[in-house]
Amino acid sequence: MKYSPVNFNNKFLKFDEQWQPKVIAEMNDYQFKIARVEGEFVWHDHPDTDETFIIIEGTLDLEFRDGKVTLNAGEMFVVPKGVEHKPVAKSECKIMMIEPKGTKNTGDVQSDLTADNDVWV
Amino acid sequence: MKYSPVNFNNKFLKFDEQWQPKVIAEMNDYQFKIARVEGEFVWHDHPDTDETFIIIEGTLDLEFRDGKVTLNAGEMFVVPKGVEHKPVAKSECKIMMIEPKGTKNTGDVQSDLTADNDVWV
Repeated sequence: MKYSPVNFNNKFLKFDEQWQPKVIAEMNDYQFKIARVEGEFVWHDHPDTDETFIIIEGTLDLEFRDGKVTLNAGEMFVVPKGVEHKPVAKSECKIMMIEPKGTKNTGDVQSDLTADNDVWV
Repeated sequence: MKYSPVNFNNKFLKFDEQWQPKVIAEMNDYQFKIARVEGEFVWHDHPDTDETFIIIEGTLDLEFRDGKVTLNAGEMFVVPKGVEHKPVAKSECKIMMIEPKGTKNTGDVQSDLTADNDVWV
């Protein structure tokens, strides 16, 4: 049988749009999603699940109501469920998120930035 | 509140031993584990869960009974549950695995390479 690696850089070459997560792999009922992000996202939380951010390239700030964390390439952070956060990137940043299938990018908040879910690349 | 990134390279600096996964983060009931690996591991499977491999540095082969996949830094692969696999690294490779808390590194196989579980670094 033919087995192929999932290569992050190759996957990022397949799209240009920002804030539109693309699924690249599944593990049980979880999905791995990559996104290009730049600027300020909306405040939101995920009441039912933690959410993992891994930085592939660039720098991402995750702002919280009581602080923030700055993440660079080769770093990760798990946002606990129910914790409000706002991703901010001064210039384009390439990230991977891991979360249960069906998790919306803006959580319970409806926004112009709410993306279609379960779009594979 | 103080929020800190999880930095892969910094975490790898904290141990030298091979084939001994160390937990660096949790997401819901899943864990992120890093390991230094070199040489041949044992054939095993995980009957109840998929298992994700992400390569941080180096090259890892995942051998299957009917093929194999070669993974380099910046690549990932999800081994489906129940699929026998044998990790092999010609020289030391730094990997991250994602799997449910409690997943043993050798699955149902007891081996000299069976590692203590839930060891954080």
